[in-house]
Amino acid sequence: MDKKLTAALVIIGNEILSGRTQDININWIATKMSDQGIRLLEVRVVPDIEDAIIQAVNELRCKVAYLFTTGGIGPTHDDITSASIAKAFGVDCPLNAEAREILLGYYKSESELTTARLRMAHVPVGATLIENPVSGAPGFQMDNVYVMAGVPRIMQGMLDNILPNLASGKPYLSNTVSCDLPESKIAETLGNIQNKFATVDIGSYPHFRSGTMGLALVLRSTDNDNLHEATRDVVDMVRSYGVEPTGISVRTDGHPIV
Amino acid sequence: MDKKLTAALVIIGNEILSGRTQDININWIATKMSDQGIRLLEVRVVPDIEDAIIQAVNELRCKVAYLFTTGGIGPTHDDITSASIAKAFGVDCPLNAEAREILLGYYKSESELTTARLRMAHVPVGATLIENPVSGAPGFQMDNVYVMAGVPRIMQGMLDNILPNLASGKPYLSNTVSCDLPESKIAETLGNIQNKFATVDIGSYPHFRSGTMGLALVLRSTDNDNLHEATRDVVDMVRSYGVEPTGISVRTDGHPIV
Repeated sequence: MDKKLTAALVIIGNEILSGRTQDININWIATKMSDQGIRLLEVRVVPDIEDAIIQAVNELRCKVAYLFTTGGIGPTHDDITSASIAKAFGVDCPLNAEAREILLGYYKSESELTTARLRMAHVPVGATLIENPVSGAPGFQMDNVYVMAGVPRIMQGMLDNILPNLASGKPYLSNTVSCDLPESKIAETLGNIQNKFATVDIGSYPHFRSGTMGLALVLRSTDNDNLHEATRDVVDMVRSYGVEPTGISVRTDGHPIV
Repeated sequence: MDKKLTAALVIIGNEILSGRTQDININWIATKMSDQGIRLLEVRVVPDIEDAIIQAVNELRCKVAYLFTTGGIGPTHDDITSASIAKAFGVDCPLNAEAREILLGYYKSESELTTARLRMAHVPVGATLIENPVSGAPGFQMDNVYVMAGVPRIMQGMLDNILPNLASGKPYLSNTVSCDLPESKIAETLGNIQNKFATVDIGSYPHFRSGTMGLALVLRSTDNDNLHEATRDVVDMVRSYGVEPTGISVRTDGHPIV
């Protein structure tokens, strides 16, 4: 694995850990990484506690090319991400003149720049800003750490501004073969197909729909040809048990699979 | 914080990290913990890679009273959780006679107990089984680590069997006051309310609905009286800005808040 094409994510948010909020940021960011050929290696969800944020950030930023964080950069007392990132890097977190200008442009007048709002313009020394196309207050990049808002729409806007600056590899392509076979029945043959294709990750995911168990066999690779061939093998395997796949979803190019 | 009432969660699954699958297990488990008065301190999502599983499990199981894992206990080549947990504890992972009996009961005949299916009966030495009310193959408990399936319905059934055996504290109650104020406007006053109530966690969560920004102020505590009083303060604060809350959701008992 090419370390230049790896990423990790720290979700900072009591609301996820308490069960109040169903997270959707992990899936959004994971999908964008796959499309850009970047492998998301780990996600951590940590509470709004300084030590927890510092530890997660410092452990993960050394392991991967890009570390993303979401949450905790607003104006309220529970927004402690910027100060925590500064501490993680051992730098101060003063008022940033450029960020202050952005807030002034957004709130229109000096009198609107309250102490609370100006908290959002405090940024670690050495960071560069990430534009927020939705609500003014910027995120920031500190070394390989990209600090974004937790509100999904704002995070998504910030990520759009970040992606063109990241390295990109061949996108991960994913084919799915669905069938009604129990996974324990196909496990051995599927393992043989996995062994045959080193560049393809094959996953087996049982699920319930309308009360009955189904199975999704997911093949994933950046290598179109091998992925195509492995998918044909999986379809042949399903048919060898005397059933037709209930669904085939293919993103690779090549001769027809069916 | 009482360590006896803490938990962490490791989600083992390439499908979450690739973006293929939207996780719903975090939220389910987080909610059950809140109801039982247990604080979920951290969640990690790691890939189906032995070293990654071992590291996450060994780091987290010392930090909390209960560590849960989901995923990777099926019959296919990518199901490596049981063997990884055994390695994390430095024990073997042999065929477990009790688990084999359970599978025999589920699949009905010896001839159906294929090598692949019997993989699901391999359990670390010293573990006790967790009943799977849906599809036979059990989870297991090893010391303070509870190993569950990744399929949500199976995980939920296993968790129902685990919960009565865990310690329980006062449930976390959560009140929400929604309003149309920008959070930067109320940030300072909200911080003062937070400072007044040490046993209440107050979070401020902006969101978009129908194109406009709204704000949810969420108060969370195991202390009914303080939570009730803090919620009244937050409602009074909203009204002090000349607007009515757009919604108040209250789980605490006491004199009416509105």
